[in-house]
Amino acid sequence: MSTEKKEALKQENKSFLRKELEDLMSLDLLRASFAEFLGVMFLVMYGVGAGLYHETLGTKPSSVHIAIETGFFIAVIITTLSTVSGGHVNPAISIGFLVTGGITLSRFFFYVCFQVLGAIAGMYVISVVSPVEMHQENFGVILPGTNVTDVQAFVCEAYITFLLDFAMFSFLDSGRSDMAGSVPFIIGILVVVNVFSTWNLSGGCMNPARNFGPMVIHAAYDKAWVYWAGPMIGGGLGAFIYDRIFSTRSMLRSGGS
Amino acid sequence: MSTEKKEALKQENKSFLRKELEDLMSLDLLRASFAEFLGVMFLVMYGVGAGLYHETLGTKPSSVHIAIETGFFIAVIITTLSTVSGGHVNPAISIGFLVTGGITLSRFFFYVCFQVLGAIAGMYVISVVSPVEMHQENFGVILPGTNVTDVQAFVCEAYITFLLDFAMFSFLDSGRSDMAGSVPFIIGILVVVNVFSTWNLSGGCMNPARNFGPMVIHAAYDKAWVYWAGPMIGGGLGAFIYDRIFSTRSMLRSGGS
Amino acid sequence: MSTEKKEALKQENKSFLRKELEDLMSLDLLRASFAEFLGVMFLVMYGVGAGLYHETLGTKPSSVHIAIETGFFIAVIITTLSTVSGGHVNPAISIGFLVTGGITLSRFFFYVCFQVLGAIAGMYVISVVSPVEMHQENFGVILPGTNVTDVQAFVCEAYITFLLDFAMFSFLDSGRSDMAGSVPFIIGILVVVNVFSTWNLSGGCMNPARNFGPMVIHAAYDKAWVYWAGPMIGGGLGAFIYDRIFSTRSMLRSGGS
Amino acid sequence: MSTEKKEALKQENKSFLRKELEDLMSLDLLRASFAEFLGVMFLVMYGVGAGLYHETLGTKPSSVHIAIETGFFIAVIITTLSTVSGGHVNPAISIGFLVTGGITLSRFFFYVCFQVLGAIAGMYVISVVSPVEMHQENFGVILPGTNVTDVQAFVCEAYITFLLDFAMFSFLDSGRSDMAGSVPFIIGILVVVNVFSTWNLSGGCMNPARNFGPMVIHAAYDKAWVYWAGPMIGGGLGAFIYDRIFSTRSMLRSGGS
Repeated sequence: MSTEKKEALKQENKSFLRKELEDLMSLDLLRASFAEFLGVMFLVMYGVGAGLYHETLGTKPSSVHIAIETGFFIAVIITTLSTVSGGHVNPAISIGFLVTGGITLSRFFFYVCFQVLGAIAGMYVISVVSPVEMHQENFGVILPGTNVTDVQAFVCEAYITFLLDFAMFSFLDSGRSDMAGSVPFIIGILVVVNVFSTWNLSGGCMNPARNFGPMVIHAAYDKAWVYWAGPMIGGGLGAFIYDRIFSTRSMLRSGGS
Repeated sequence: MSTEKKEALKQENKSFLRKELEDLMSLDLLRASFAEFLGVMFLVMYGVGAGLYHETLGTKPSSVHIAIETGFFIAVIITTLSTVSGGHVNPAISIGFLVTGGITLSRFFFYVCFQVLGAIAGMYVISVVSPVEMHQENFGVILPGTNVTDVQAFVCEAYITFLLDFAMFSFLDSGRSDMAGSVPFIIGILVVVNVFSTWNLSGGCMNPARNFGPMVIHAAYDKAWVYWAGPMIGGGLGAFIYDRIFSTRSMLRSGGS
Repeated sequence: MSTEKKEALKQENKSFLRKELEDLMSLDLLRASFAEFLGVMFLVMYGVGAGLYHETLGTKPSSVHIAIETGFFIAVIITTLSTVSGGHVNPAISIGFLVTGGITLSRFFFYVCFQVLGAIAGMYVISVVSPVEMHQENFGVILPGTNVTDVQAFVCEAYITFLLDFAMFSFLDSGRSDMAGSVPFIIGILVVVNVFSTWNLSGGCMNPARNFGPMVIHAAYDKAWVYWAGPMIGGGLGAFIYDRIFSTRSMLRSGGS
Repeated sequence: MSTEKKEALKQENKSFLRKELEDLMSLDLLRASFAEFLGVMFLVMYGVGAGLYHETLGTKPSSVHIAIETGFFIAVIITTLSTVSGGHVNPAISIGFLVTGGITLSRFFFYVCFQVLGAIAGMYVISVVSPVEMHQENFGVILPGTNVTDVQAFVCEAYITFLLDFAMFSFLDSGRSDMAGSVPFIIGILVVVNVFSTWNLSGGCMNPARNFGPMVIHAAYDKAWVYWAGPMIGGGLGAFIYDRIFSTRSMLRSGGS
């Protein structure tokens, strides 16, 4: 390695560190992390709340009830928080921003920590405001469907989160001029579709923090890897592949139209 | 207190009074109040109408039927009345505008009165156009679910209305330039989500006027505090906290990005 | 009456007649009427088709199935035909345009005739492409619910079509600058709401042509007045009242804000 | 035929060939075809996945579950891929672009081949990630409803795909200036409507590739003609008729308004 190359690399590292430090010390990061905390807290309160029913006297909410609740909530929370924190409310979205250079590593860690804390807080609130007769076994946890193996559920979580990140980074592609209407709403209906398409397979979670909150309350972590690895790998890959192969930037580079 | 300060305060009070009086004497306030009356009248006719079914020969409308009816109605009525009255049709929205300085105190009182009167009128109309076989016990009133305590329902109503106002004032934040598509539609799907998420808990009312109309017809006010205090406190807080901590204005003040 | 006044009236009548004649002789009216024919033909094929199920082996489609089909179809057909005919596909919309001066009397009559013919054609097509086992009694006709009187159903049809026209003319008010996103979509979700809110009362028809097609096939006209008078009176009034009291034009005239 | 005419025709053929060859040799066509492959692969994984349930322990997903999944997926995938391949993901859409001159013949063949391959791949993936207890007879294939003849199903598929293409080319008509909001979303809700309106008749497929994937896995092609001929003929006609009779271009030509 020549001295110039070494020097350039050193410069780059320096600028990497400076970027990280600047972000870490900004007041903005704190407010954004707090927003992520609030967002996931509400997401868990809403998502778990929507599934509650009285064991003997009630009727189980339908798949349409749950899927539309989940997707429309995401549309709303992104629209609400996008100018504060970006409205990720999901580590599998944050990892997409990380791998495409949209956020610093420090911000990624802050966001994920606050998202997980928010999920635990939300699970606590929903436990308190609902009667114990509605706390079914595995209360609040999304699990693989009947006869579905852990590996099958893992693959399902991976591919729905792959499409979630792939599509989202396509919508946010700054080189596109054809986007019209509300982008968070289209992300929201993608979430609806993801829940419907894996309803009896993995349950359509695609958000490790959302499922981790209930798991902490139950102290039951045997399926944790499925709902962490699936979304994180799928989501990270989806964002990366869109960015490198299909983004307007990458198409210009390779001379496509 | 120095004389200057006293003088400034006096000036401010004077301008407060002048603003109130000017608003009171405008023809516009009357038309706007009438629009709020009409809006809530339809809201109750529609909301209560959607839940009706024949006790013995019919099928109970599903949660999806009710939730989508409620949310899409809100999207429509806001779009319809926004240039006339703002399309609040809900005291818990009006209180949000009051605490953030969007409307005068006089207007707040006028709106709430006309909203309540509209709810009573709407309840009367729907009673007349539907057969008595469809008038179940508690006909038209939203009540806490099985085993849900009043305090639990109060907290649920508070937090869903907190998010309603918080999100709405984020959407209306004049410092944001990233909003695209129909804002009333996003508010409407938030209402859908609110109904779904507390369907078996508080029933997802978030509008004190809407529930008060049926209560007046039944002369049954024992749960009235739940559906007045929950939305008014939650909604007021949501609007206030967004305005002071997360609005683009407040972020500029504290030097955030 | 003074001679000047008589002369002015004569001039006005002349210009009224000229306007009518010009419209009558335009090729555009023919194409527009044909588009209205096609639109209502599809509306009936779709609306009646959505409700079909096998009497003994099938399941009756839910209210959500029917309501969303109806409303989303309206959103689509308005978006498709708006530059051709305006995409009324409903005499109760056409009457709104008539009373607010949006279309000529000749065009109104042409549209309504072609809409009714389209409904009959559509009913014929759907009869042919579906097995007789799916042709329930009253196949395709919307009727009042159990125990609902004709007068009650008439009032329901009147008020949902009142809001349909009232809201639509508010959305189309050229003095408004706050509309964003797709207007036909908001009209579509209003139709969803109308169907949900009168599902067990009048059935949520709001379109005289749509219900007249099936009635012609059955030659059963005893409820015809309910589904003609309700929407035509309600719709006409809704458009008129918005135009005269709440439109931006009327507000400017009376000095409101 | 005069020599000039012959010469002109020769010129035209030459330019036709050149256009075809240029498209064939572009790197862009490869990437676009790959995008179509991915799009249909996901479409089949999602569409078939949404319908899965445990034969004895599960509940069959409702028509609302399936219809919204299908339509919202289309809205999402068009928004995602429109800058890459146009996001057809359906031979019946590609044929519309072919007959209106939007794509070359070479591109049409590439797209259809990759769409069919994508459907087979998607069917393979969903077979692997789901338990065999969920693989009902005819697993993944859309078939005519009870008592519905093949010809009836063929007509249904033809007219829903007719409207799909007719409406889509109206939305994309470059002479229109009244379109607002997300066009892919309106296409998506049209797909929802198409599924609802033929739910118990042809099943609402409107995509030959989507149904061919599962047929290949089962090696059961007896209904293949229904789901190939219906959408291809209907879709092609819909695009053609809009383009020649109702497009803004055709209206200008004939002197309409």
